[in-house]
Amino acid sequence: MNIAILGFGTVGKGVYEIVKKANGQTRNLSVSHILIRKNKERVLPEMTDNIEEILNDKNTDVVVEAIGGIEPAHEYILSALEHGKHVITANKAVIAVYLKEFTDAAEQNNVKFYFEASVGGGIPWIQGLEKALRIDRVNSIQGIFNGTSNFILDQMSRRGGSFVDVLKEAQKLGYAEADPSADIDGIDVANKLCISCDIAYNIDIKNRKALPIFGIRNITAKDVEYFAKKGLSVKLIGRTHQKGNKFDYVVEPSLFVNHSLEANTPDNYNLISLNGDTIGKLDFFGQGAGMLPTANAVIQDILDIQEEKEHLKREFNKKLEYCPQLTKGDYLVRSKADIADLFKDFAPTYEGKYLAVHSIPVGEMHKIMRQVLKVDSSAFMVSLPNGEAVA
Amino acid sequence: MNIAILGFGTVGKGVYEIVKKANGQTRNLSVSHILIRKNKERVLPEMTDNIEEILNDKNTDVVVEAIGGIEPAHEYILSALEHGKHVITANKAVIAVYLKEFTDAAEQNNVKFYFEASVGGGIPWIQGLEKALRIDRVNSIQGIFNGTSNFILDQMSRRGGSFVDVLKEAQKLGYAEADPSADIDGIDVANKLCISCDIAYNIDIKNRKALPIFGIRNITAKDVEYFAKKGLSVKLIGRTHQKGNKFDYVVEPSLFVNHSLEANTPDNYNLISLNGDTIGKLDFFGQGAGMLPTANAVIQDILDIQEEKEHLKREFNKKLEYCPQLTKGDYLVRSKADIADLFKDFAPTYEGKYLAVHSIPVGEMHKIMRQVLKVDSSAFMVSLPNGEAVA
Repeated sequence: MNIAILGFGTVGKGVYEIVKKANGQTRNLSVSHILIRKNKERVLPEMTDNIEEILNDKNTDVVVEAIGGIEPAHEYILSALEHGKHVITANKAVIAVYLKEFTDAAEQNNVKFYFEASVGGGIPWIQGLEKALRIDRVNSIQGIFNGTSNFILDQMSRRGGSFVDVLKEAQKLGYAEADPSADIDGIDVANKLCISCDIAYNIDIKNRKALPIFGIRNITAKDVEYFAKKGLSVKLIGRTHQKGNKFDYVVEPSLFVNHSLEANTPDNYNLISLNGDTIGKLDFFGQGAGMLPTANAVIQDILDIQEEKEHLKREFNKKLEYCPQLTKGDYLVRSKADIADLFKDFAPTYEGKYLAVHSIPVGEMHKIMRQVLKVDSSAFMVSLPNGEAVA
Repeated sequence: MNIAILGFGTVGKGVYEIVKKANGQTRNLSVSHILIRKNKERVLPEMTDNIEEILNDKNTDVVVEAIGGIEPAHEYILSALEHGKHVITANKAVIAVYLKEFTDAAEQNNVKFYFEASVGGGIPWIQGLEKALRIDRVNSIQGIFNGTSNFILDQMSRRGGSFVDVLKEAQKLGYAEADPSADIDGIDVANKLCISCDIAYNIDIKNRKALPIFGIRNITAKDVEYFAKKGLSVKLIGRTHQKGNKFDYVVEPSLFVNHSLEANTPDNYNLISLNGDTIGKLDFFGQGAGMLPTANAVIQDILDIQEEKEHLKREFNKKLEYCPQLTKGDYLVRSKADIADLFKDFAPTYEGKYLAVHSIPVGEMHKIMRQVLKVDSSAFMVSLPNGEAVA
């Protein structure tokens, strides 16, 4: 199979390297093109800055989109599918928005659109979820979906230090990007959770603005210290439940008791769990990012196409309603402002420097926190363990 | 597809339950027979004590062997394959011995022999290993393969208590069997490691007696305490390396630093890692046993057959030589007997109540320990972190 790689960053390079090496073995794979930006030097003979050349090459079977971001990734993926090429991508941002469009286009053009590497990187999460769905209804998903934020929180809890200092060090080590906002503000988790919901519930989440997201930007060394004294670790979590024709989803910092799997997910590792009606809980754990694990997942998708191993077919056409009241939780809130009154319906009590809020619908909690942030932009919230009771 | 289940213990019941429930959904699966022992009451209409009835039933497509042990499991699996039925099993003991025979018989009779649930229970380990092998050479495998022994060691380290007391409690809770020897003496790990080696290296390990195995039966509360003071946790590990035309394998208690993934694998969880030449390290983590996770893995194999998703083809015909000197390690040995002389070639030093042995070939270490056990049946050994250098 001839592969065109769009973009030559971490993922693109990883795919190129594995194909080069794997070819020494039994596989009949080769890289026909590498799309680079117009101003870049063409250091490899496969490199081109002309997407049309790739789209119109009858001998290119698979396009690996590794540019990232929404445009032109969206445009290139769609064009590739329409030109009868299979497409593989690890780009969660573009899939979170256009999964149904890409899937429909692939179906119409009799090619495949696979994206195992987009969620969980090297962890076979999409595949694990799709397999569970072959026999079961998945009624909830919870996970540490983002390696960068986990690395930062893990370092803060192990060695102390302010959020800003640890972030800087993570950037130096290559664990965080120059602009870290997608990772630390929960946007990356939201994209991955969105893709997971679409698959799990066979839906097409449209109104992504409604997703309650709270990141870790405001966490302090003192927060982490206080939680540690109580035997708790903080993690940035994505979480969703399905009940009847309703579902919810949330991205927020959450506390876990020290002996839980979540509390013991170190460094930049991910841990994603699903709960099936019949099969119960399944955990997926591993390197959520990194060049080789992610590139390996991309290559596995290519080999599935070569071996005609079809992935689960989804039409993303079920109608489930997002319900901000579906689950309730207990939270700790830290703010310099006097905020007790805002939470008066939810039995607020004081716990150290925190306001503890009890049995509040998750959507409501995030709505009130948006008000809190307007008067105190450094305010922080975190959900307490076992607080997520389905209402 | 019509499924016959041989045996109605944990795995058999789990498969029965999932098929019953999944059938409410879209899948066309049904249980045609359940083989029970002659003296058992037939409480379900599908039950029979006559294997011939199952073998000769033209409508039975798949046989799920869930009896366990070597015979008659071996005989039944072979007969089922020869009668043109696909066979799925979670029985690692029988596969460790007869994997090549079963695979050949399946090939000759144009049916499938799948066994995802045999190693790692609910963790898609076999599949993960097979996928890695589609593109890479796997040069080492290491894992916590046994949930029972991990539960015991985890309890001992968390709450203290003697091995015997914790084992009794594990038996009460259903985590350990009445006869726990396969789990605590490392035999179960050896079986799973053997299967993993066969697949990874495409070999057929014949002389299984040569496998160096040391279990956890002799570990004491004081051992665990001493290791904890040094910031180390003990785990029962299976480990193998491949180099050139040689490989090694070992089952032994190993120490891990407190922040490692291994040290943080709790309860009855498993953690198995592979190292590929190109793709690097991949970790597989989850519930290694339990009715539903294991039964789910069995059902996934059945669905792969239904959807004609072929697993990796292996002929188990490569010639690799087992080499007891391939890797070297550092060890701590505890014995009432004066044993320093036995280890005189390996720079023995005293560390507390332990003899520390340095840079000793793994096979040699186990050979000497067999001598030690003859004079002191309560002696204990454990390998030190990072000691496993390939020679």
